[in-house]
Amino acid sequence: MTLNVGVIGTGMIGQDHIRRLTHVLSGVRVAAVTDVDLDRARSVADDGVTVHETGQALIEDPGVDAVVVTSWGPTHEEYVLACLAAGKQVFCEKPLATTREACDRIIDAEVALGRRLVSVGFMRRYDAQYQAMKAVVTGGEIGAPLMMHAAHRNPSVPDHFTSDMIIVDSTVHDIDVARFMFDEEVSAVTVLKPRRSSKAREGFNDPLFVLLEMESGVLVDVEASVNAGFAYDIRGEVVCEDGTVELSESAGAVVKRAGAYGGRVPEDWRERFVRAFDTEFQAWIDAVAAGGTTGPSAWDGYAATVVCDTGLAALHSGAREPVSLREKPDLYKGGIGGSGR
Amino acid sequence: MTLNVGVIGTGMIGQDHIRRLTHVLSGVRVAAVTDVDLDRARSVADDGVTVHETGQALIEDPGVDAVVVTSWGPTHEEYVLACLAAGKQVFCEKPLATTREACDRIIDAEVALGRRLVSVGFMRRYDAQYQAMKAVVTGGEIGAPLMMHAAHRNPSVPDHFTSDMIIVDSTVHDIDVARFMFDEEVSAVTVLKPRRSSKAREGFNDPLFVLLEMESGVLVDVEASVNAGFAYDIRGEVVCEDGTVELSESAGAVVKRAGAYGGRVPEDWRERFVRAFDTEFQAWIDAVAAGGTTGPSAWDGYAATVVCDTGLAALHSGAREPVSLREKPDLYKGGIGGSGR
Amino acid sequence: MTLNVGVIGTGMIGQDHIRRLTHVLSGVRVAAVTDVDLDRARSVADDGVTVHETGQALIEDPGVDAVVVTSWGPTHEEYVLACLAAGKQVFCEKPLATTREACDRIIDAEVALGRRLVSVGFMRRYDAQYQAMKAVVTGGEIGAPLMMHAAHRNPSVPDHFTSDMIIVDSTVHDIDVARFMFDEEVSAVTVLKPRRSSKAREGFNDPLFVLLEMESGVLVDVEASVNAGFAYDIRGEVVCEDGTVELSESAGAVVKRAGAYGGRVPEDWRERFVRAFDTEFQAWIDAVAAGGTTGPSAWDGYAATVVCDTGLAALHSGAREPVSLREKPDLYKGGIGGSGR
Amino acid sequence: MTLNVGVIGTGMIGQDHIRRLTHVLSGVRVAAVTDVDLDRARSVADDGVTVHETGQALIEDPGVDAVVVTSWGPTHEEYVLACLAAGKQVFCEKPLATTREACDRIIDAEVALGRRLVSVGFMRRYDAQYQAMKAVVTGGEIGAPLMMHAAHRNPSVPDHFTSDMIIVDSTVHDIDVARFMFDEEVSAVTVLKPRRSSKAREGFNDPLFVLLEMESGVLVDVEASVNAGFAYDIRGEVVCEDGTVELSESAGAVVKRAGAYGGRVPEDWRERFVRAFDTEFQAWIDAVAAGGTTGPSAWDGYAATVVCDTGLAALHSGAREPVSLREKPDLYKGGIGGSGR
Repeated sequence: MTLNVGVIGTGMIGQDHIRRLTHVLSGVRVAAVTDVDLDRARSVADDGVTVHETGQALIEDPGVDAVVVTSWGPTHEEYVLACLAAGKQVFCEKPLATTREACDRIIDAEVALGRRLVSVGFMRRYDAQYQAMKAVVTGGEIGAPLMMHAAHRNPSVPDHFTSDMIIVDSTVHDIDVARFMFDEEVSAVTVLKPRRSSKAREGFNDPLFVLLEMESGVLVDVEASVNAGFAYDIRGEVVCEDGTVELSESAGAVVKRAGAYGGRVPEDWRERFVRAFDTEFQAWIDAVAAGGTTGPSAWDGYAATVVCDTGLAALHSGAREPVSLREKPDLYKGGIGGSGR
Repeated sequence: MTLNVGVIGTGMIGQDHIRRLTHVLSGVRVAAVTDVDLDRARSVADDGVTVHETGQALIEDPGVDAVVVTSWGPTHEEYVLACLAAGKQVFCEKPLATTREACDRIIDAEVALGRRLVSVGFMRRYDAQYQAMKAVVTGGEIGAPLMMHAAHRNPSVPDHFTSDMIIVDSTVHDIDVARFMFDEEVSAVTVLKPRRSSKAREGFNDPLFVLLEMESGVLVDVEASVNAGFAYDIRGEVVCEDGTVELSESAGAVVKRAGAYGGRVPEDWRERFVRAFDTEFQAWIDAVAAGGTTGPSAWDGYAATVVCDTGLAALHSGAREPVSLREKPDLYKGGIGGSGR
Repeated sequence: MTLNVGVIGTGMIGQDHIRRLTHVLSGVRVAAVTDVDLDRARSVADDGVTVHETGQALIEDPGVDAVVVTSWGPTHEEYVLACLAAGKQVFCEKPLATTREACDRIIDAEVALGRRLVSVGFMRRYDAQYQAMKAVVTGGEIGAPLMMHAAHRNPSVPDHFTSDMIIVDSTVHDIDVARFMFDEEVSAVTVLKPRRSSKAREGFNDPLFVLLEMESGVLVDVEASVNAGFAYDIRGEVVCEDGTVELSESAGAVVKRAGAYGGRVPEDWRERFVRAFDTEFQAWIDAVAAGGTTGPSAWDGYAATVVCDTGLAALHSGAREPVSLREKPDLYKGGIGGSGR
Repeated sequence: MTLNVGVIGTGMIGQDHIRRLTHVLSGVRVAAVTDVDLDRARSVADDGVTVHETGQALIEDPGVDAVVVTSWGPTHEEYVLACLAAGKQVFCEKPLATTREACDRIIDAEVALGRRLVSVGFMRRYDAQYQAMKAVVTGGEIGAPLMMHAAHRNPSVPDHFTSDMIIVDSTVHDIDVARFMFDEEVSAVTVLKPRRSSKAREGFNDPLFVLLEMESGVLVDVEASVNAGFAYDIRGEVVCEDGTVELSESAGAVVKRAGAYGGRVPEDWRERFVRAFDTEFQAWIDAVAAGGTTGPSAWDGYAATVVCDTGLAALHSGAREPVSLREKPDLYKGGIGGSGR
């Protein structure tokens, strides 16, 4: 009754998921791990956990029921395709793959297989605040949606971070949220460059202001900054015909002192989304144990990657760039907005 | 010691100002009124108030120390110029004038006169919330400004209202707020058309999403809608390098009932800005009684009109339109951001 | 048409009211002043303001239409009685008088006169937040009231302040609010002594926790502290059968920085209640100009003084002390809850 | 490595804990169940779960590593003593036992054993909001605590509920929170009866206002109502010398519509405390798996029962009743405030 999971990639996020699978979630154990750095893989493997020399070997291990891919983005395609070939359920951290073509190949393989084996880690769909927001939007009490205002404020990033990565690594979450919230595709992207923060190093455009046009005309604007310094602050407001709905502040306690009242803003993404990760994984474990899968599909991973590609084009051109998606296979029909709940 | 004020225009806003001057403010009385509809002017004139047949006659009345212009926009130029010719202080409701050329003529006349006689009614500069926000922005505690997010949600408008009027009648306030908040000019305008609200009649683009680029690169986005229905909701958030500052909700009491907590959102502009109007007028009365003036200048009125014109061009072209301003006369140097406080 | 007011008492509060009557409010001027310290009275008198040697002389001055009493509490009785004798409207800062017997004599005199000339300065009735709260309570949307929780947090007090003064100078406002909110009398008082703040000097019980039982059984608890240090923080929540209503925070702007969001809490009573004082006085001026009066009556002043007396007895006895009021004269019937609005 | 737990009592709360142990938490399985109603026990037992005819048999089952007691309160003593006799860790839902004497016997048995086997289910200690509040109080940033204001508003209760049960079933949580928050014992209890809600049936005093005096003088007031109707609303504010800290509202999204903004208040205790229950149980499972225990001790259960007893005396006498506790055995020294985190 316990699901045996193999984890490919034991870096920071991989280790956090191993902790989660081992100590937090129900009905699951880590059966095997591997990493490009085998010493690192060995150092995080508890007793009874097999360390494989390659991802391929881990995927083929009969003691592994399902696979979690948390390796470097460019390696995702290979491992996801191998899972499809092996007929094993796979949870792949975003991105599904780093190029539109790689995503295409995954979709082709899964469509050929005829059933869903791929789930992509867009954890915000499992966040209680976004779920409360979506319940209001789809509940109809405030009418049809017209706009969404979002902000993605990251306190700091490593030195190698670039403006492109604001789109691909940060805004990708807001792109998935927009698709999830309105259950439709993004049709065009424009990227504006506001005044540059003096905290961003020379040549680095930060913040960016990303405009997503949805198929229905709903306009989504995303303030994205990765040198915000003061907090990890994720904001969102959906404007509808008869009202609005906004993510609330998440502080548990409000302190009054020294002439002011106030509450804490999260320090980083772990603090803000720890519960969403737990909920996302438990949902996936339960679905896999029941013989299926749940959560964002390969199509969602494909669409996010294509919109990110278009966003990069828009960042570089300074112009509005239309999004071009392949035809959606029947396998993925029935809505974008699923979170498995 | 009592300032004798003449009011030109006794429509809705004129009547509200007459009430304010008569029953709320200190050191002032309404000495004379006039209106294109003389019967309406007579009906609002208390005992002892002279009713003039024309604005010109009112301006020349030696019993009138200073003039308030609340007539129809296209008539503003004539009355303001007449006040300048008469050497009388004039408070002109926005717009200063409806065309760039008319504003030019007013500026030329005032510059020729060599002293400021014109004050323009952008009351948000006197709102306690915007003033608290500006104090934070200029106080430096959250660093240099990068962006501003604003929303101007009007519950409903008369049938003759058009998309152009969203720019000229509604967004004009946000344009002035942006200039006031950052003490710099707008350099370009783009207007986007999100999904149309089904509450807006056919052919009416509502909401609009107006992007103002400030000279320093600060990017200001304004969600402007006039069929919001649910409330008169004015929002604003300034994003700086080290933090943000946001207008708070204004409800005086929070009610908890039927599974929810909540507070009131204002019903209309009167409820939201009644105190700002009082404060603005008292500041002007005190300044005029002391021999000068205060508040937004003819230059502020000119710049707002030019940016609105540019906004209309942007609405119609669908493109980014640069703002072109004349050179700023010395008379108006020393900063935009004044509110007389 | 301008009301000529004489001000008795030109200390801190008197000077603030003179500023208000001169520079803020409509339809009024300060015609005469006096003070126990004549030099101080002279120093605050503008040109054209008569300085009288005694309160009696000021009250008898035919150039004084109505009187504002802001002198030391023990002198209030004499001046209010003199105003009644002279048939002039009088606005008396709280307390109406410092003893139950003195209040009795004022009530006897006003009842003998047969019309209301006395208004007492309980400004919280004119505060927008308390008025919003009362509108909810009396509107019935949350059912019958059961309890009220209040806090009166004063940042600091002069060295001569005593625990008794927490009741008489601070809690007196909460006593009037309770009577105003529920439109009924206080029937018993208990005073508890929580842990003593180390900021209060030796022998000074601070905070106090004051329990007011209303005639209907509604229980009002008041946390009263005068060494709170961190802010001037006035809190209130009414608990009803179907919901609650709470005073909101009053900050105009919310700042996010350094890992926290927050807003300002007022620094002192002036900042918190400046508008309530303005509104209260303008209402009184308008009512007096119209030939009457408005606001809390001599009965309200009497009841507050009697409840404070009972509170002192309760503080000293440690026991629940019943409140004993004289029969209410017909002159004051028709409700406690008036604020003249 | 999986902890085998036996559950005594399969009513509403027992079934919820079985769901939690089976589907939510890590490192645990339900090995055995029993109930006074054996059919009910059988109906909730999954395949592989032993159904025992008595609690005694379940406790003695060698396949049961640790025991969860969720049966009717009066049976707790027997099962907890049997676990102590069997040397097995036991998690007992509150109350530890329904009488002071029964609690005494449990403490005697555990002290004789010389090690802690008993953990009592006061889940609020594991609630993120209360933990944030306690972190502020003990962090010292707002100085020494002076008072705490609390409210426990329950929407409705079954017909058999009595005023006594407001103390024993509802306020017991606030009693434990007070002991946890300030790490000291309650020294006296007073119970006041505010105006009776018309929603409470005849003879039922609801709400109650419970005053807890802590050893240090900190005064805790608890508004407790069980016919609040509008929501399950748990409030708390700690007042310290240099500031205050208050539980925030817990709504994830704020909706603006129809002239108001607002958020959801929880519907019942499950919605409000679901995460606290999960966290509490996972902490206990981890501690038991590591060979120990965690969370509120038998002493905490004893103290809560004694304070509740004193509260009942105070409710019936109308007077302040002192709390009398036995001497605290060494086994329990080292602080009250633990939550195992």
